Amino acid sequence: MTATDVLLFGKDAEYYREHLGAEFPDLRLHLAQDNGAIAGRAAESQVLVSMAPAVNAATVRALPRLQWVQAMTTGVDNLLIMPELPPGVAITRVRGIHGPQMSELAILDMMLLVRDFPAVLRNQEKHRWERWPQKLLVGRTAVILGVGSISEELAPRCKAFGMRVIGISGRSAPPPGFDAMMPRERLHEAAALADFLVLLIPYTPETHNIIDARLLSAMRPGSFLVNLARGNVVDEDALAEALRAGTIAGAALDVFAQEPLPAESPLWDVPNLMITPHIGGMSDTYAEQALPTLRQNLADFVQGGAGALKDRVERPARAGTA
Amino acid sequence: MTATDVLLFGKDAEYYREHLGAEFPDLRLHLAQDNGAIAGRAAESQVLVSMAPAVNAATVRALPRLQWVQAMTTGVDNLLIMPELPPGVAITRVRGIHGPQMSELAILDMMLLVRDFPAVLRNQEKHRWERWPQKLLVGRTAVILGVGSISEELAPRCKAFGMRVIGISGRSAPPPGFDAMMPRERLHEAAALADFLVLLIPYTPETHNIIDARLLSAMRPGSFLVNLARGNVVDEDALAEALRAGTIAGAALDVFAQEPLPAESPLWDVPNLMITPHIGGMSDTYAEQALPTLRQNLADFVQGGAGALKDRVERPARAGTA
Repeated sequence: MTATDVLLFGKDAEYYREHLGAEFPDLRLHLAQDNGAIAGRAAESQVLVSMAPAVNAATVRALPRLQWVQAMTTGVDNLLIMPELPPGVAITRVRGIHGPQMSELAILDMMLLVRDFPAVLRNQEKHRWERWPQKLLVGRTAVILGVGSISEELAPRCKAFGMRVIGISGRSAPPPGFDAMMPRERLHEAAALADFLVLLIPYTPETHNIIDARLLSAMRPGSFLVNLARGNVVDEDALAEALRAGTIAGAALDVFAQEPLPAESPLWDVPNLMITPHIGGMSDTYAEQALPTLRQNLADFVQGGAGALKDRVERPARAGTA
Repeated sequence: MTATDVLLFGKDAEYYREHLGAEFPDLRLHLAQDNGAIAGRAAESQVLVSMAPAVNAATVRALPRLQWVQAMTTGVDNLLIMPELPPGVAITRVRGIHGPQMSELAILDMMLLVRDFPAVLRNQEKHRWERWPQKLLVGRTAVILGVGSISEELAPRCKAFGMRVIGISGRSAPPPGFDAMMPRERLHEAAALADFLVLLIPYTPETHNIIDARLLSAMRPGSFLVNLARGNVVDEDALAEALRAGTIAGAALDVFAQEPLPAESPLWDVPNLMITPHIGGMSDTYAEQALPTLRQNLADFVQGGAGALKDRVERPARAGTA
């Protein structure tokens, strides 16, 4: 095939060029940090490599020859609903590499919540020595909504702490690390068993606000919610209300309906709510973790074009685009 | 034997009386919350059941008939050096129950340190959305100084996160969960391999300030110290200096040379130092965890007196008391 132009977009672009440039002499690798930098030959790119949230309508408009978007994230929901992205453009993503980082944040969140640990750290600022019985993970129950490659790494870590792990999923046989599986129709029943309800489910129209006031009421008063999935799977107003009312004991949110969470959002100050700035998927070796997927997909593309890409993301048919 | 008076001292006293009273009709169980409450029949007690740090010279002086102290802690160092405690008084303690709580705090401390997580929580107070690459436990090396029942629970949890685990101990064969063992003579060499140096070693004259300026200099600049053992195993001034100088990246201390840590201690404000108020051994089910040991030892005592107690703590011979 003739030379292909590939736009490596964002902060890891240089890393990918360094590690792949020599392997793919037929690819012209261009780098850009933002939409404004997409010019000249880079604007002729057929391939865009980028974290999905960094891609917006202007990015797509700047790339009229685009055939394929390689999202370096697992979530691609913004791409799926972007009208500017022509339906013929292939989308692939990076899967199965987020297990370690997401699992570690889930365990960290659970420990922080159950111990009311932010108060320990605030006491340090006040030079205050104040002890209270420390609640542990051992013996407690984690209910994980969404059973995929991340949950399959989280569950054995929970077991290492002596926890009970229940997965909510259509799968009937529990993967290693799970004590039991329950179908999504029994979510309310499962939520009532949880010391921790951990959300790792993809965002789709069906999971929009799946955690609502009614679900929160089904949880036990001493229990905690951990959302590492997408902001819109939780009804944020209902959660804030539940926390203020003591319906549940606490929550940790890493994802939000609007990101970055605006400084004026009331969520920042909701009692017993711990906020992290969408760091669940991050690691200090992320580009290294994601590189093998990019390498394989580029090889397939060089070989046979967009049609040769495996594991393409299905895009929902839209009125007027089908 | 004739009826024995047993003093249950401190906040779990009521719990122990509830769960053991009916089983031991020959024991007269007395309760006291502090030295001032040791009076009347309670002052005739031959047996004292208490967390070790709650026992002081006045407690011992109030109990002239004392034959046996059952420490409800593992550490009994204050009892061993207490001149007022007659050498003939037996000491037993609770061992092997702290694994879950100590392990969980060790993992929590490592995650908080490596991510600079206190800064994330401070950002929430400021409504600030600020992200930085998150460092993980996976692939990192924990060096554990002191290999006993707690380390044997910590090591497998570290392995569940994909860490490498090295134990410093006289034991040559690594217990399950350890990748390697090194003798204490190679502590400096081992410290240089550590991303995390975790202290779980008992305090003895030999381990006094075992972590000193020279040891800290042997550690890598990006590494972290976690002390869950006893305050005096670390030279606190040297550590503060090492943190100010950036010799190591951070530390978490749960134990201190002086406890409670006085409000005017400069340690509270040392950069990259996280302070917790000696909560490593605590759990919300502590009395429940410790009950079986107390039950067994009371049964042995009822059977054959202090001489029948198993696993008594050896007390160092002292000039004038041998």
